[in-house]
Amino acid sequence: MPTLNLELGPRSYPIYIDSALFDDEELLSAHIRAKRICIVTNNIVAPLYLEAIKSKLTKFELDEIILPDGEAEKSLANFERIMSHLLANTHGRDTTLIALGGGVIGDITGFAAASYQRGIDFIQIPTTVLSQVDSSVGGKTAVNHSLGKNMIGAFYQPKAVIIDIDSLATLPLREFNAGMAEVIKYGILGDYEFFVWLENNINAIKSGDKSTLSKMIERCCQCKADIVANDETETGVRALLNLGHTFGHAIEAEQGYGNWLHGEAVATGMVLAGKLAVAMNLLEVSDLCRIEALIEAFDLPLQAPETMSCNDFIRHMSRDKKNIGGKLRFIIPTAIGKSEIRDDITQETLQQIL
Amino acid sequence: MPTLNLELGPRSYPIYIDSALFDDEELLSAHIRAKRICIVTNNIVAPLYLEAIKSKLTKFELDEIILPDGEAEKSLANFERIMSHLLANTHGRDTTLIALGGGVIGDITGFAAASYQRGIDFIQIPTTVLSQVDSSVGGKTAVNHSLGKNMIGAFYQPKAVIIDIDSLATLPLREFNAGMAEVIKYGILGDYEFFVWLENNINAIKSGDKSTLSKMIERCCQCKADIVANDETETGVRALLNLGHTFGHAIEAEQGYGNWLHGEAVATGMVLAGKLAVAMNLLEVSDLCRIEALIEAFDLPLQAPETMSCNDFIRHMSRDKKNIGGKLRFIIPTAIGKSEIRDDITQETLQQIL
Repeated sequence: MPTLNLELGPRSYPIYIDSALFDDEELLSAHIRAKRICIVTNNIVAPLYLEAIKSKLTKFELDEIILPDGEAEKSLANFERIMSHLLANTHGRDTTLIALGGGVIGDITGFAAASYQRGIDFIQIPTTVLSQVDSSVGGKTAVNHSLGKNMIGAFYQPKAVIIDIDSLATLPLREFNAGMAEVIKYGILGDYEFFVWLENNINAIKSGDKSTLSKMIERCCQCKADIVANDETETGVRALLNLGHTFGHAIEAEQGYGNWLHGEAVATGMVLAGKLAVAMNLLEVSDLCRIEALIEAFDLPLQAPETMSCNDFIRHMSRDKKNIGGKLRFIIPTAIGKSEIRDDITQETLQQIL
Repeated sequence: MPTLNLELGPRSYPIYIDSALFDDEELLSAHIRAKRICIVTNNIVAPLYLEAIKSKLTKFELDEIILPDGEAEKSLANFERIMSHLLANTHGRDTTLIALGGGVIGDITGFAAASYQRGIDFIQIPTTVLSQVDSSVGGKTAVNHSLGKNMIGAFYQPKAVIIDIDSLATLPLREFNAGMAEVIKYGILGDYEFFVWLENNINAIKSGDKSTLSKMIERCCQCKADIVANDETETGVRALLNLGHTFGHAIEAEQGYGNWLHGEAVATGMVLAGKLAVAMNLLEVSDLCRIEALIEAFDLPLQAPETMSCNDFIRHMSRDKKNIGGKLRFIIPTAIGKSEIRDDITQETLQQIL
């Protein structure tokens, strides 16, 4: 089976990508250290996959936490709920958490694993495009705060990532498309060849062709793993993975978490970053058109919410984690397949494009 | 000035121990990376030292969070309050937090630093015996949960520890004595010579003799630094530092945080661990008597609360972080200056001593 490895010395771990992995008892058990497990999932994923996975893990002592679905649930309140569950059920330091679900479940479970008794093992089993190609790999864990997305969290790596691409078959179309924003992101920020491959495979992807999806996810995970291996805690190149996220997080925070899906906000954010680049004469208009066309092919929004003013954006972006010394920093595409970090964007340029 | 170094590769840091360090502008500034600082302290310490320290840091942009005093404040609610303050004031990843106060302030500030935007710098300025000899060194950060002490946290190292022993002059006697429990702990668990030195210096310590206090704190920090350098995340020898804490945490949780001071609970916990050792024929009764005498010399309690049953203890201890595979684990003194981790304590032996 296609297996990548994220190389981080003692924190290295495998990323398995294939069909029918939820039936693979040996694989599901391979990275569990002791006899207790707690699965964290949500009320959408649980009816689909929880029993199947539990039936393969009967040799462990297992319980579960089922959160409501949605970005609004990635909260400190639900983090506390996980802590209370683990304590009430006397889970020890040798328990393994399993995050079964999308990015919300992966992020909050990862932060819970990082913090419970100062750190326990966890495994990512992502079930959405977004979490399979992005959030489950690389150890960024977090919960949201009303004043900013992912503002409370930790860099904390899982013991393994198990990606069963069959789980995408049950994903609602809107969520599938939202995840495609993160896929397209890899092409724009650093992989021209992959961008072209995506342009040529739109139909195969949309029809859910397994071999195409498998290739696509593997390529994204490889890209992510390469970047994270070079810069685990985002002191440099890892920031490029935030392409589209500076504007995107502002949209999500302003609109209320969950009203725009994360991937939808990132899609618009990438277009805005592209417009910024064009306004600064850093990107050809024709490249921006190709970016917009690919994003649109997956029915993703190209325009910021009409109700959001430039000041609304700036208010949220002033809290962006990338900012240094109070200066806004943006990831700017300078061509398809090339991007850089800039902190020299003027208020006027922002006003012009927003 | 006496300066120790905690050797942890890229996470190494200095521990400064001396008088009048709050006047040392250069030292206070030395480990601050950018231009913004947020000091976290409490309503007891703030009137004593906050202005003095702020007056030495005028070249930085500085704000502060003043929490109420007490162990009950080491909560997820106050952790969230710190997060909200930092976000509302648009602190970035380059902000440095300063923990000015005792163990509660150090622990909660450290966890806030570990979690804010997935990790920012922090400096420990401990002002109590307990925090100077124990909690400020070694990177254990946490908040409490109603079901267990320090159950939510991270291993996250400060950039420096600045110990001004003058701050002990303002410490209430009960708190001073409680801190002595952690001092005595180092003697019992691994340093016979230090235990004897303590027996011989009871009066000098009680009278607040600066040179004696300085020596005492340095010895404790050296002991802690040596152990942590060998086992940062407590996979082995670091657990010995929990001598007295298994019983102690149970007392604290059962009595409500703050009713028994942490050090008082640890003092009783060490006596109970000693009694366990005697009951198992692992410790001479005469050694237990010397331990009790030294603890009593600092007016610390030798007996568990009368209202606590053996079952009360076991209920709390079953959630202890040291437990593996559901088995209770205790640190047992086998002589003054020697201790070991045991998981073979029977319910009967526990009933006998509780």
